[in-house]
Amino acid sequence: MVLLSGGLDSATAAAWAVKEGWQVAALSVNYGQRHAIEIDSSRRVAAALGITDHIILTIDLAAFGGSSLTDAANEVPKGRSADAIGAGIPSTYVPARNTVLLSLALAMAETRQAEGIVIGVNALDYSGYPDCRPEFVEAYRRLAAVATKVGVEGLPIDILAPLQHLTKAEIIRLGSQLGVDYGLTVSCYDPLASGQPCGDCDACQLRAAGFAAAGLPDPAVAPPAHQ
Amino acid sequence: MVLLSGGLDSATAAAWAVKEGWQVAALSVNYGQRHAIEIDSSRRVAAALGITDHIILTIDLAAFGGSSLTDAANEVPKGRSADAIGAGIPSTYVPARNTVLLSLALAMAETRQAEGIVIGVNALDYSGYPDCRPEFVEAYRRLAAVATKVGVEGLPIDILAPLQHLTKAEIIRLGSQLGVDYGLTVSCYDPLASGQPCGDCDACQLRAAGFAAAGLPDPAVAPPAHQ
Repeated sequence: MVLLSGGLDSATAAAWAVKEGWQVAALSVNYGQRHAIEIDSSRRVAAALGITDHIILTIDLAAFGGSSLTDAANEVPKGRSADAIGAGIPSTYVPARNTVLLSLALAMAETRQAEGIVIGVNALDYSGYPDCRPEFVEAYRRLAAVATKVGVEGLPIDILAPLQHLTKAEIIRLGSQLGVDYGLTVSCYDPLASGQPCGDCDACQLRAAGFAAAGLPDPAVAPPAHQ
Repeated sequence: MVLLSGGLDSATAAAWAVKEGWQVAALSVNYGQRHAIEIDSSRRVAAALGITDHIILTIDLAAFGGSSLTDAANEVPKGRSADAIGAGIPSTYVPARNTVLLSLALAMAETRQAEGIVIGVNALDYSGYPDCRPEFVEAYRRLAAVATKVGVEGLPIDILAPLQHLTKAEIIRLGSQLGVDYGLTVSCYDPLASGQPCGDCDACQLRAAGFAAAGLPDPAVAPPAHQ
């Protein structure tokens, strides 16, 4: 079971799972995020990786409010410095998002007799989300072991975070070796009407810095026009 | 934050939370269960308890399959003996249901600055669900402490299971003392077209045995007609 957001990290994690030789099913969740264009991306990524068991669930986390990522009344922060991105928990934090996503994946994993759930969280270049940290993943692993029928009757479903300790540049290098087409992925929190990334939000900035550090071009960004 | 299913247990847990003097918000989830009549019940219970912040979310767990409670192709077991109900995990187990419900409650709790989540799970008279056990609640409590922004920056959101160690009869006695109108609640997994409980599923049997042991009539069941 792979959680597939349509972003760069989860595409890399999914490619890793396919490369490991597992039979992979994928779950994407339309949770009311501003960047629902992600869902189209997740479809393209799943197709490119040959994942046919791909469920897209809709759930309205925006009904709770509390995040600039789901709440149209809040602005997504733009043009923040690298220091600002690394400090504190930003308004784009969606309350308990990864907890909700893992829980839905756990439900689906149990019906598929899956051995593990792969999630693309990483903590080195993260922008301050508590539910991307290793202690979160470990706590979820312990929960999964007691939460399910398969955990009680047989082997618990494991939680795998293969990107946990990689930088964005290392993730991009890994994905490139695995043949991920990053042109299919979208990272922007607040895409333009054209579908193009805004270039200024935290996610766009972390992505651009990652490609730069990896020494690779980002195929999702149009090259600057020649003058 | 109280998880309100519309059943007997969660109505009692909610009444307990109100009695404790907390400002209570409630979450109900229409997850594709056969007994969606529960949702109407949850509305009536919330109204009776004076809970005005009541969110009803819809999420299609039936898309995953794997449970007779959400999958129309599977039969809900009927007429099982008390021994059979107590042994093993029944087909009405919904994969990872309480994990999903608590995760959604955690998301809502964080937006409400709630101090705790109240869930009506109990393990004494339970019919074999892994996610009703004390070890599940404890694992979730540990997860909640590392999963959220409030947990990182301040006090974690606690998980409260006030009915955990009560029998069904003790729950009914507690609720009766708290003034819960059990006539508003519904427990049946597979209600008749009329909305009346089937009387034969595990939930109906556990409920009937609980009222009998408490020495109280069940106001949700019509008394037998006089001859």
